[in-house]
Amino acid sequence: MMMNKPNIVVLGAGYGGIMTTIKLEKILGDNDANVTLVNKHDYHYQTTWLHENAAGTLHHDRTRIPIKDVVNFNKINFVQDTVKSIEPSNKKVILEDGELTYDYLVIGLGFESATFGIEGLKEHAFSIYSINSARLIREHIEYNFARYTTEPGDRRDLLTIVVGGAGFTGIEFIAEIANRVPELCQEYDIDPEKVRVMNVEAGPAALAGFDEELVEYAMNRLEEKGVEFRLGTMIKQCNENGILVEKDGEQETIDSQNVIWAAGVTGNSIVEESGFEVSRGRVPVREDLRTPDHDNVFVVGDCAVLFNPETERPYPPTAQIAMQMADTAAHNLKQLVTNSSELETFKPNLQGTVASLGHTDAIGVVFDGKKLYGRSASIMKKVIDNRYLLKLGGIGLMLKKGKLDMFR
Amino acid sequence: MMMNKPNIVVLGAGYGGIMTTIKLEKILGDNDANVTLVNKHDYHYQTTWLHENAAGTLHHDRTRIPIKDVVNFNKINFVQDTVKSIEPSNKKVILEDGELTYDYLVIGLGFESATFGIEGLKEHAFSIYSINSARLIREHIEYNFARYTTEPGDRRDLLTIVVGGAGFTGIEFIAEIANRVPELCQEYDIDPEKVRVMNVEAGPAALAGFDEELVEYAMNRLEEKGVEFRLGTMIKQCNENGILVEKDGEQETIDSQNVIWAAGVTGNSIVEESGFEVSRGRVPVREDLRTPDHDNVFVVGDCAVLFNPETERPYPPTAQIAMQMADTAAHNLKQLVTNSSELETFKPNLQGTVASLGHTDAIGVVFDGKKLYGRSASIMKKVIDNRYLLKLGGIGLMLKKGKLDMFR
Repeated sequence: MMMNKPNIVVLGAGYGGIMTTIKLEKILGDNDANVTLVNKHDYHYQTTWLHENAAGTLHHDRTRIPIKDVVNFNKINFVQDTVKSIEPSNKKVILEDGELTYDYLVIGLGFESATFGIEGLKEHAFSIYSINSARLIREHIEYNFARYTTEPGDRRDLLTIVVGGAGFTGIEFIAEIANRVPELCQEYDIDPEKVRVMNVEAGPAALAGFDEELVEYAMNRLEEKGVEFRLGTMIKQCNENGILVEKDGEQETIDSQNVIWAAGVTGNSIVEESGFEVSRGRVPVREDLRTPDHDNVFVVGDCAVLFNPETERPYPPTAQIAMQMADTAAHNLKQLVTNSSELETFKPNLQGTVASLGHTDAIGVVFDGKKLYGRSASIMKKVIDNRYLLKLGGIGLMLKKGKLDMFR
Repeated sequence: MMMNKPNIVVLGAGYGGIMTTIKLEKILGDNDANVTLVNKHDYHYQTTWLHENAAGTLHHDRTRIPIKDVVNFNKINFVQDTVKSIEPSNKKVILEDGELTYDYLVIGLGFESATFGIEGLKEHAFSIYSINSARLIREHIEYNFARYTTEPGDRRDLLTIVVGGAGFTGIEFIAEIANRVPELCQEYDIDPEKVRVMNVEAGPAALAGFDEELVEYAMNRLEEKGVEFRLGTMIKQCNENGILVEKDGEQETIDSQNVIWAAGVTGNSIVEESGFEVSRGRVPVREDLRTPDHDNVFVVGDCAVLFNPETERPYPPTAQIAMQMADTAAHNLKQLVTNSSELETFKPNLQGTVASLGHTDAIGVVFDGKKLYGRSASIMKKVIDNRYLLKLGGIGLMLKKGKLDMFR
């Protein structure tokens, strides 16, 4: 019996990959398939909390979850390794320290920062994409604040934090930074007046596509905390001294040793490099989440793009969509390995969107169009986070890692 | 009456300066003199604890004490400013933001790191001399550990900590670092095997002049914790990649992004630059602690040098000596302003020396020659620290800032 079991390999333990694995663990019979999960680290992390780790308002150990705590290693093979490439024609995955063959593959390799060719951004700006990169930003800012009191001259560039992009990540991160500045000033003996926190957005508005009234609320709240917004302003260049911006043809240099780029993401470049068809770095998957060319390869999460037939726009690359894709992918894999030919079509259940403004503040629109502000939106955000943990690892995990300070 | 009161100006609120001020506050009558204390920061700090702040094993707020908590500002004028130079012929002190005239001056400006002309040390190595510099070292090491997980390649130089000098500060600091490494590895996801902690000492032994048996104990304890000792090894150069060392004519480069120079101190350079006679950066004071040339200028602490007639060696630049000098200087100032001509001769009361090896370990020799190891030496060290706090600010301060975990 054993020899006939197909091999399912899941690449990446982000929202899409880990939820696919957990679902497969539940729905597959013992003799249906071997499931192998491959991930660079031995932990899963909540990408949607990384901006808090990067700002230093939440410790990264709260954000990550050991894979062994949520996946049963008696049922699932776990390989801790880095994916180098995929060879779909050979049904093979090349890892840093070996290779794996598969009968069915699930690609859940997540996003990469996209710098759109802006000069110097890759070299001089930071971006928030992992536990390691978030922790580095926290340490980088702290180090510069410490340097301010020992460097000769009045090095305000050390105390200037520039965030590129006023999308979700940019706004959520800058909100945390604004909350963190008073603590940083206390710890490093800095006069708060000397600190500058700036958001630079190329588009005409923050949180493009979000309800205007909520965006105005968010901007007011952030401006009250000292955030400077530069809308309609392009970053033309980033170098060792800071950034060069342009608005209406006028250029200006802004000296900053802390530039965080949060203005764009794309699918993991390994996917394109492995020869899969991509559109802006993402695989335009079929409705059953398989790639256009391979009946045995699924893509979930940020490496996949699928259009909402109602709006004719792609579903956003969110945790919510990734997890719902995982459900569909796992269901369809079960069908394939049990020789049922009927595959399910991905149908998202859009429950709404909440953007955190730090701590006890947020804005959100729920599925019925209802707008939420402030504490109620913040509670909604925490409820969403806690429901995810409940789904991922049960009540124990929710109690351990959840945001249970909802009603303070 | 007021107009005839002489002005006493005390420069620096280190051990010598602040204890002189506090003693003057106690012994001077209301009409004896005006006393002004000048210090760069509004806090005093315990220089002997800075190595713990630099290693990150003790928060710097434990080490510093607001001057207003220990000096009565109704009786003493406090000026927060930086001393630029002294003009003894004009009885004037030039500050960054003004100047002060004095009738009597006490110079307690502390030490500076001495790099003995070793190439690149000033530019590329850190040294422990203030709250700001200690905090910078803590942040620098943490930042490099964070960078290790994001930089391409196996950048072991980020995880290599080199301490130059195996004197008191070098040994006490490396002991704290050795204790800190496991915490750093936990926080930054580093394999402890990859971390290297090295002490480089030009002389043939660590803690030159200290009891050999105790030194051996200390080295064994530190080696057990992973410290590598390079004795009889000169640092020839420090650059952006690390250090170049030489032993017995053989040269070796050691890649390190964390070089801390703890091998030498000298008196504050302002003293020599202001035209005072110095020997190796320190003023060879008279037995009553006045400078050779000025009957109205006292020097206390690390800017002064005085020879022990018994050993024909200078008294060491320690906190203990600085505080005892403060007693003598304050007494003699009282004599001068009250027109008593009899000045006291400085007679140190050498109570012994204890070197901390971190946490609950230490070595020491007490005044009667008795040797102490381990916990008992560690307790002795904490007793000394607590007695100092008691003297400085009473029971309240000792309870607030003291090391009260002595018997754990």
